[in-house]
Amino acid sequence: MRDAEGKRRQLLEAGLVEFAAHGIAGARVDRIAKRAGCSAGLVYTYFTSKDELFEAVFDATIEQTREDAPITVHDLPEYAGRLFDARRLNPEAARLLDWYALERPGTTRPAALISAQAKVEAIRTAQRNGKVTTRFTAEQILHLITQLATRGAEDPHNPLDPASHREMIVEAIRLLTTPT
Amino acid sequence: MRDAEGKRRQLLEAGLVEFAAHGIAGARVDRIAKRAGCSAGLVYTYFTSKDELFEAVFDATIEQTREDAPITVHDLPEYAGRLFDARRLNPEAARLLDWYALERPGTTRPAALISAQAKVEAIRTAQRNGKVTTRFTAEQILHLITQLATRGAEDPHNPLDPASHREMIVEAIRLLTTPT
Repeated sequence: MRDAEGKRRQLLEAGLVEFAAHGIAGARVDRIAKRAGCSAGLVYTYFTSKDELFEAVFDATIEQTREDAPITVHDLPEYAGRLFDARRLNPEAARLLDWYALERPGTTRPAALISAQAKVEAIRTAQRNGKVTTRFTAEQILHLITQLATRGAEDPHNPLDPASHREMIVEAIRLLTTPT
Repeated sequence: MRDAEGKRRQLLEAGLVEFAAHGIAGARVDRIAKRAGCSAGLVYTYFTSKDELFEAVFDATIEQTREDAPITVHDLPEYAGRLFDARRLNPEAARLLDWYALERPGTTRPAALISAQAKVEAIRTAQRNGKVTTRFTAEQILHLITQLATRGAEDPHNPLDPASHREMIVEAIRLLTTPT
């Protein structure tokens, strides 16, 4: 039982590397199996298809991000900073979400929707309590944070060192979310 | 001569559709040829390889965006709004740039660098004249505008209609760039 759990986790980790590098269409199950130290046949005893493996990797990534950077509505600028840190320490996660957006446009995973909805609710409560600006809706605030903190960290036109990049994000979210 | 120019333009347009849908690795020259109404062989008399065709499409897209939304440093919020309009009217362009970032990480085209550098210079001059905040560097301001105005327009967690989305971007860039 423990071995099965361990192998499943190894497959998710190997899958993250492969999908981040090649996307869904470009990923190869035999390379994932090799990296996890098993046969391609064994992969299919855990996941019925490459798509199902991708979805499991995607959901695990969402969960990992939520653990690494839980939302703190009393300090949204610092939340944005921690989101940036999490993405920087796990660049594969950012690439995985970007591939998903390109290869499955207009769709999303239930895990991602549920995670986003919980954050929107928390921001909305903070707005009611006067802790966060009402200049933007709660959905807009989450969108602004996500756009600035989790995308474009490797923008080749943006010659920022990571510390300056983080400072910029924290300052921008402070300007955008402080109550007036 | 005019026919050659016309066919080249048709190939660039067909290439944009194909690359936006499938990325660089997934694109097929025979589909591009078919869409442009010519043989795959003819494509190679204009472009020596699929990569060269992609690069020509990429450069044409950068040029088109510069024409559709020239930078206006005296009104950066409205510039961001027009960038958003341009991307919305040409969603293929946004997807093309996203594929490029994923499939050629850490690199960029000279045309994109030159275009970005000119914008940074213009913002820097406006900063010197006190028209734009110096809270952020000129590079950071361009990055903030690009992140908010050209990415995530189809974020499935962001249930905004286009008019509200545009208003949010203009207001955010106003808050971020107005001199203090």
